[in-house]
Amino acid sequence: MSATVFHRLDELASRYGLERRGDAATVIAGVATLADAGPRQLAFLANPRYAAQLATTRAGAVVLRAGDAGFCPVPALIAVDPYLAFARIAALFEQRPHPQPGIHSSAVVAPGARISASASIGPLCVIGDDAVVGDGAELGPHCVVGPDCTVGAQSRLVARVTLVERVTLGRRVLVHPGAVLGADGFGLAFDKDHWIKVPQLGGVRIGDDCEIGANTTIDRGALGDTVLEDDVRLDNQIQIAHNVFVGAHTAMAGCSAVAGSARIGRHCLIGGSAGILGHLEVADRVTITAMSLVTHSIREPGEYSSGTALQDNRQWRRNAARLKHLDDYVRRLTALEKGPRDD
Amino acid sequence: MSATVFHRLDELASRYGLERRGDAATVIAGVATLADAGPRQLAFLANPRYAAQLATTRAGAVVLRAGDAGFCPVPALIAVDPYLAFARIAALFEQRPHPQPGIHSSAVVAPGARISASASIGPLCVIGDDAVVGDGAELGPHCVVGPDCTVGAQSRLVARVTLVERVTLGRRVLVHPGAVLGADGFGLAFDKDHWIKVPQLGGVRIGDDCEIGANTTIDRGALGDTVLEDDVRLDNQIQIAHNVFVGAHTAMAGCSAVAGSARIGRHCLIGGSAGILGHLEVADRVTITAMSLVTHSIREPGEYSSGTALQDNRQWRRNAARLKHLDDYVRRLTALEKGPRDD
Amino acid sequence: MSATVFHRLDELASRYGLERRGDAATVIAGVATLADAGPRQLAFLANPRYAAQLATTRAGAVVLRAGDAGFCPVPALIAVDPYLAFARIAALFEQRPHPQPGIHSSAVVAPGARISASASIGPLCVIGDDAVVGDGAELGPHCVVGPDCTVGAQSRLVARVTLVERVTLGRRVLVHPGAVLGADGFGLAFDKDHWIKVPQLGGVRIGDDCEIGANTTIDRGALGDTVLEDDVRLDNQIQIAHNVFVGAHTAMAGCSAVAGSARIGRHCLIGGSAGILGHLEVADRVTITAMSLVTHSIREPGEYSSGTALQDNRQWRRNAARLKHLDDYVRRLTALEKGPRDD
Repeated sequence: MSATVFHRLDELASRYGLERRGDAATVIAGVATLADAGPRQLAFLANPRYAAQLATTRAGAVVLRAGDAGFCPVPALIAVDPYLAFARIAALFEQRPHPQPGIHSSAVVAPGARISASASIGPLCVIGDDAVVGDGAELGPHCVVGPDCTVGAQSRLVARVTLVERVTLGRRVLVHPGAVLGADGFGLAFDKDHWIKVPQLGGVRIGDDCEIGANTTIDRGALGDTVLEDDVRLDNQIQIAHNVFVGAHTAMAGCSAVAGSARIGRHCLIGGSAGILGHLEVADRVTITAMSLVTHSIREPGEYSSGTALQDNRQWRRNAARLKHLDDYVRRLTALEKGPRDD
Repeated sequence: MSATVFHRLDELASRYGLERRGDAATVIAGVATLADAGPRQLAFLANPRYAAQLATTRAGAVVLRAGDAGFCPVPALIAVDPYLAFARIAALFEQRPHPQPGIHSSAVVAPGARISASASIGPLCVIGDDAVVGDGAELGPHCVVGPDCTVGAQSRLVARVTLVERVTLGRRVLVHPGAVLGADGFGLAFDKDHWIKVPQLGGVRIGDDCEIGANTTIDRGALGDTVLEDDVRLDNQIQIAHNVFVGAHTAMAGCSAVAGSARIGRHCLIGGSAGILGHLEVADRVTITAMSLVTHSIREPGEYSSGTALQDNRQWRRNAARLKHLDDYVRRLTALEKGPRDD
Repeated sequence: MSATVFHRLDELASRYGLERRGDAATVIAGVATLADAGPRQLAFLANPRYAAQLATTRAGAVVLRAGDAGFCPVPALIAVDPYLAFARIAALFEQRPHPQPGIHSSAVVAPGARISASASIGPLCVIGDDAVVGDGAELGPHCVVGPDCTVGAQSRLVARVTLVERVTLGRRVLVHPGAVLGADGFGLAFDKDHWIKVPQLGGVRIGDDCEIGANTTIDRGALGDTVLEDDVRLDNQIQIAHNVFVGAHTAMAGCSAVAGSARIGRHCLIGGSAGILGHLEVADRVTITAMSLVTHSIREPGEYSSGTALQDNRQWRRNAARLKHLDDYVRRLTALEKGPRDD
């Protein structure tokens, strides 16, 4: 690893516009959790769940809200959004060496590919015909960039990323290992007694500053493209089907899935393992909680859920068995309300 | 890309046995959606959701049902199943160059592998001992074909597909990137204080004309094989556990999962993120809706569901809290029905 | 494959401490299911679901419980836990050739990597700087071991496994194809109008004897590490987010997912497609049934569930529609119980 980085607390305060409490000369050489931080590390308190750890922290300093500062036994940086402030400061301590530009000798590059001289192509990559890799882009080992794919400037494919066909990545896109972009959409038509495949003729367009998680899949469109606008953030193992549209700044948690031609708005938050059916629309600023299933279009911002609460299995079984007859119970309730009939 | 293909509308009509309305000489050079198609493109109308787009389409022609033809402002092809007819016509415009037969110089091929002279093995593939690759089969970059695996004639592994061990693919099987076939099934036995692994000695057998989606996993059997019959269609990120059997023509949508030794019939439709527990049977022609969990065998064809409807989170919370006590409510309802006791 | 292995039934009985019934000289040359086994194969009966197959089995011998032995038409081995006994015996018939130690000529190994002379590095692997591969470890084709990663002694990466950065595997860890360990956790902070990435500075620590399924993802910690203790068993397509802790001997079935900083106890069983939300704790010896969602900490051992029972779609629709108003029904029920008001 590279040499250790040091920052004085007063320097950090002025650099990020934060109020400082305590010794200006406190030296910060790294970041850690409240529970684990030592005297040369910066910690943070954002989630109240961890407030009890403040009293006993051995951190050199803590980033926290003004309201928590009184309980902090060590120097502090005051922030309206401590998590955001911490994220920025932590970036100072992230030291990923930028790889040398150039194409590794083991990579297989088609003659028709256009690769910027400032790009870095790692070991055993395969770059197809008419593929374009932009300035400062970085491909780790084992990436495949298929025909007619474009990797925008400063984008990074960490390792073993596959861009199958007609995939365009914007600038500063980060794609994690195992992701597959531009595979065939799942298009089938039934012909008397067997399936025939519907050709998948579109592509995938990913905006600037998007992040695509490990083993996430984004299929190319059947007709027209599958689209992620700028700053869309996808966690691991997400499935985006053909012709889906995801608006800017939307974030989706792990294992969520969107079926074909669904249109998701901007600034949405989709919980883990949630599902969104095809051909429907989700408005801007919609939150879907984990493992919920969206079966109809959502026209209004807000938070939406489906599913049932977790219970002890024996209780759960009893209620689940009853639920199978809920309609009958409601009819019986209604009959009772009407009172005894005069037969 | 290759040269553009042109077809006259009357030629398409006669080739696919469709009735034509409007100018026989209309030239079609591609396909697109109703909303996006230009005057040299063919569109289609199958889903009533998009019927409103018909009036303003700029398509050269539209494939649609007879009942919609009266509302079509441009030439039309009449089909009983417009989606199917469109799928066939669209295939004319899909121009994937067939790769040259032969083995790329960067591939690593074991001496005992048998590879047809008409097969194409892409860059950086690894072919193991006793592996067989049939006539006209095509392996894209980064595929691994392990020992005792067979790739049937005309099958295609798009890129970065892994056949681990004892996997047999039929003819014309299409496997998308990231798929893993033939990994160990998840077999464990608990031995006092730790797990021991149950050897996974079986294989995987995939019939003709199957399609396996990106990052889908199909484990090999513990004893005996995991089997997909002909024409089974799997979307992305599906998990098929050891010794599962899937009948012919069944299609499964993304992120669905089938546990060990389950037996699924023919012509089933399994929705996205649905789950099927192990050691049970699902009859032919069963549809499971998205995110439903099959916990017992299904003996009759039909459509089956579990889960709850999506609601605004505040309403949902109220109902979910009540559901935890449904059994009590039903008892109270029953007590009310019995009337006041004569104590 | 290698030469066939033979064992006499009396030899198996004494080797594994099992009672034998029937001919001591019965020759066993393999294992199979009750339904498929032939006269030189050993079968087992553990799940009562398959008891009916006992009467007609053609197996050479069957491992079963004492209570089932009376119904067994062929020689038998009696075990308290027939599945466990069978697992041990079956291992005798698993003949995976151990690969030659050494580094395949096509692998790309950084000068700073330290690889044991007894380790085997397969074709097209990429080993980064400061990576360590221990004694007897085995990397199949297409594995990537990134900077500062350690593969413990006797561990095996089957094929196409990616260890991204700061990942430490214990001894005898088995990782299946497509697994990605040590990718960035999904950490985002919202800055006025866009996301900024929270640096992911921690690592992943995997204990001894763990198994990681195909296409499973385990992200590295944001601060501190993501941890699996010894003997944790993960099936395929599981998502483990940053800073999750999984206690020893816990097993998770396919497609389950754990969100960030959740802490799961020891000896837990997590069902397929289950979800566990972030920042919560699950006690030791907790079972979560398939597709359940854990939304709060679980303090007591036991079995927990959420979700609803599968029904015919028409019935299900009726009940699901009613459930949206359950709170109202309960209010109406309560009003009825209070009786008519004296207005």
